[in-house]
Amino acid sequence: MVKLDFEKTKGLIPAIAQDAATGEILMLAYINQEAWEKTLETKEAHYWSRSRQELWHKGGTSGNVQIIKDIYVDCDDDTVIYKVEQIGGAACHTGMRTCFYRRVSGDELVTEGEPVFDPEEVYGK
Amino acid sequence: MVKLDFEKTKGLIPAIAQDAATGEILMLAYINQEAWEKTLETKEAHYWSRSRQELWHKGGTSGNVQIIKDIYVDCDDDTVIYKVEQIGGAACHTGMRTCFYRRVSGDELVTEGEPVFDPEEVYGK
Repeated sequence: MVKLDFEKTKGLIPAIAQDAATGEILMLAYINQEAWEKTLETKEAHYWSRSRQELWHKGGTSGNVQIIKDIYVDCDDDTVIYKVEQIGGAACHTGMRTCFYRRVSGDELVTEGEPVFDPEEVYGK
Repeated sequence: MVKLDFEKTKGLIPAIAQDAATGEILMLAYINQEAWEKTLETKEAHYWSRSRQELWHKGGTSGNVQIIKDIYVDCDDDTVIYKVEQIGGAACHTGMRTCFYRRVSGDELVTEGEPVFDPEEVYGK
């Protein structure tokens, strides 16, 4: 198994999910050794949820998983890119395609694009 | 100025540098409030160097700066994307275009691409 440097940052390193087809950056979350192993084993993106403090199989509940197409590792082994196919079309919990849907415009953030799904329908409320 | 959430992670959040023209992810580094302000003010990417513990004007020595074309902020204000024009063509200290030049292939990392410059010439050794 490819070894990453989890030591420098107390066990967690960033993983960037990028749309394998378009190059769009969908989200950034964190992985630990367990999430890394699960991702390699299942070919679906796993992260470590910092808020819930548990292994997070992205889309495990909604079905909107991220299928791993390729993985790239940076020059000092402490960041990875998951090149993914995002099932359901949206990575963000807001229903937007990408978590990065707001552009800096002077002192403001301007929303770009429209939600792909209604989060209340997908996650239930 | 657009406010980011530096509190959650003790003052540092990740900034992803992405080629504005091609969508290629070039590197990931960290920013603090000071680096964020300098980036907005100068329109050139600034980071916080964790190893040197100082403000890092990327390319400030070599001239290979990253000119900011756009900035995107994620849904919880704790990650940003710098869409940049990479002067000199390479973001990585190894001379490679991107820091993510190694692809996971089974238990190995396979290098893709060739260095754009010789780091010894640019940084002097």
